[in-house]
Amino acid sequence: MELTGNVLIAQGGGPTAVINQTLAGIVQEARKFPQCTRIYGALHGVEGIVNEDFLDLTQETSHNLEQVAMTPSAALRSSRVKPDTAYCQAMFRVMQAHNIRYFFYIGGNDSAATVRIISEEAQEADYRFRAIHVPKTIDNDLLESDHTPGYGSAARFVAQAFMGINLDVRALRGVYLGVVMGRDAGFLTAASSIAQKYPGDGPHLIYLPERPFALDEFLGDVKSIYECCGCCIIAVSEGIRNAAGEMIGPQLMRHVDRDAHGNVTLSGSGALGDALADEIRRRLGIKRVRADTFGYLQRSFFGCVSDVDQHEAREVGERAVQFAVWGGCDGAVAIKRTGEYSVDYRLVPLAAVAGRARSMPDEFINAEGNHVTDAFRYYVRPLLGSGLKSPAMLRAPRVPRILHAE
Amino acid sequence: MELTGNVLIAQGGGPTAVINQTLAGIVQEARKFPQCTRIYGALHGVEGIVNEDFLDLTQETSHNLEQVAMTPSAALRSSRVKPDTAYCQAMFRVMQAHNIRYFFYIGGNDSAATVRIISEEAQEADYRFRAIHVPKTIDNDLLESDHTPGYGSAARFVAQAFMGINLDVRALRGVYLGVVMGRDAGFLTAASSIAQKYPGDGPHLIYLPERPFALDEFLGDVKSIYECCGCCIIAVSEGIRNAAGEMIGPQLMRHVDRDAHGNVTLSGSGALGDALADEIRRRLGIKRVRADTFGYLQRSFFGCVSDVDQHEAREVGERAVQFAVWGGCDGAVAIKRTGEYSVDYRLVPLAAVAGRARSMPDEFINAEGNHVTDAFRYYVRPLLGSGLKSPAMLRAPRVPRILHAE
Repeated sequence: MELTGNVLIAQGGGPTAVINQTLAGIVQEARKFPQCTRIYGALHGVEGIVNEDFLDLTQETSHNLEQVAMTPSAALRSSRVKPDTAYCQAMFRVMQAHNIRYFFYIGGNDSAATVRIISEEAQEADYRFRAIHVPKTIDNDLLESDHTPGYGSAARFVAQAFMGINLDVRALRGVYLGVVMGRDAGFLTAASSIAQKYPGDGPHLIYLPERPFALDEFLGDVKSIYECCGCCIIAVSEGIRNAAGEMIGPQLMRHVDRDAHGNVTLSGSGALGDALADEIRRRLGIKRVRADTFGYLQRSFFGCVSDVDQHEAREVGERAVQFAVWGGCDGAVAIKRTGEYSVDYRLVPLAAVAGRARSMPDEFINAEGNHVTDAFRYYVRPLLGSGLKSPAMLRAPRVPRILHAE
Repeated sequence: MELTGNVLIAQGGGPTAVINQTLAGIVQEARKFPQCTRIYGALHGVEGIVNEDFLDLTQETSHNLEQVAMTPSAALRSSRVKPDTAYCQAMFRVMQAHNIRYFFYIGGNDSAATVRIISEEAQEADYRFRAIHVPKTIDNDLLESDHTPGYGSAARFVAQAFMGINLDVRALRGVYLGVVMGRDAGFLTAASSIAQKYPGDGPHLIYLPERPFALDEFLGDVKSIYECCGCCIIAVSEGIRNAAGEMIGPQLMRHVDRDAHGNVTLSGSGALGDALADEIRRRLGIKRVRADTFGYLQRSFFGCVSDVDQHEAREVGERAVQFAVWGGCDGAVAIKRTGEYSVDYRLVPLAAVAGRARSMPDEFINAEGNHVTDAFRYYVRPLLGSGLKSPAMLRAPRVPRILHAE
């Protein structure tokens, strides 16, 4: 028996450059099915569900929807609330009242956990219902997926940023630290490696949350690169932690802010970069040391998007609707790499994704724990999309000296 | 009598996204003139001149030169050294030894001051010589020019960044501060205003070095915007100063670094943004407050360039050579706006540009001193170039509530 009723879509967690592609993919695909009566969007994620703050996306023009798809960040707005069972039950009551029969939640592993609770509520209530988790995160830390929508575009931003930084620091010498998002997984920071083209190009050092960060070793690494190259460019994950597993960043921040998930907010402060820069100045005596914290620019910059990421974000939305309408069970959409480079989509159990995180595999990190391997470069390159320009350097020979002849 | 000899090109000060267009413009144009025997490039600006570190650009392929033109930062590398008269005399001796007859220095107002000293040295020595200053700076603070090459691309980066930030902060609410480069001139920070499209869009507040910054007024501004919009997005120039004219940034930095010009280095630290964010949290009791310092990303980001800026940067280089070969005097190339939008180039006296800086004119700043005017928006828009995308928002109507019916 066909399941007919309303569709509800929500977006959760941190925005990405392509999350609205997924939204548009779900809406446009759902419009093709007579089973999908009306299509609602919840404002501010789960908050909009408990509060019944819904937009009637059935009445959105296709044209504007396509414009929104090209716009970064979450058009339905987002939320950091992590619902407990009572919260999920309240959401479920609202969904029943609005005859929601298809629920799509675009988000990371915390959002998958929410979808899982809602799915269980519906089963217990014997309410005919399909709940699908649709993946999104710049952190690239979802299990079961080769990579996640949103990662490719953020990785492209980081790669382009380090391409420019590399040239800037070479022009004026010195040491540069760029602090990149990534609380537990180093995938985004690792994408900085794509900036290396010519011999001597940075980033020369890459520090990831997957390997313990030791200040003395770090200073030793910086010293040897600086002495040999005259400059040193470093990419650091905001989530780097010491051998005891404690994060370095929060220890250096004046103000520690936690989100609803109990996570310390690491972005939106320059503390980690500034502190590491101070150590380099003080202990290595290098004068020109600069630190930038990429912060929110890297996930919402307008006009830096991977077309591959865009296409896949669109497709996870389309496939989510197909799985919901034609499939017989709830689940999470996952991306499977099927070739070099091609992908397909699967529906995996919610429990396989919910509340669990993936780290960089060992084969992507070098033995010293301060850079990536070619295996990672091979993995990440197609995700950055097409049209990525490459910097060029002068290759003209030196003019023989006259006054200071050797 | 025609002046025949070698050409020397140098790049000074902070890199830009299009300074290599100017380099390519000079080289390609000089290649057309038989008077220009060989074309040299000094490495690291004035340092490369005293040390005779020259590349023989005559031997650079045109193809690679065009690739370099599309690459941000200074391909000849740069320098922060501010030469005094003795340093300039040493440079002049090297130029004589290499039979340099045409000298082009691409830089800001400090570089113009250097060109002026060299020009005077040559006149005193009765050495037949042409010295031309070619403009470049993201700060847009050169006198005699409507705007400067490099500004348009950096302004485009800032506009695109705030377009994304605006959507990101709207999605998750709260207060956001973006700290933008600009020690004395607010032009770059002001470009953030282009991100405002829909009613309620940020940046809601823009603080510039041209107006005294008072913390209490600032907090009052933030409070009223936040209470009315539920979020507040702020653009702040790194060079904001109090009523006594003292810069706010250095007072908050752990480590104060000065360049050869005696200027405190403001970028490469998150101190200003972090301190202002702390004040907002502490005094206004707003929980979600984030600060990003755009730092070096804004001047060297790879793949964010204004085509108008690119064309003009190329043309100032070409015209510099024409002025040198066909004109009868030294000078600085300046951009004149001749229509809406068209430009032409003039050669102005070096003294009119050297060591002097331009600020935002009063008609570009609102009466409250916390935003820009439409006159500024009209001024800046063409400089950002073509193809600047525009964000889109959903316009679907609300769904009537059932459980929480009003």
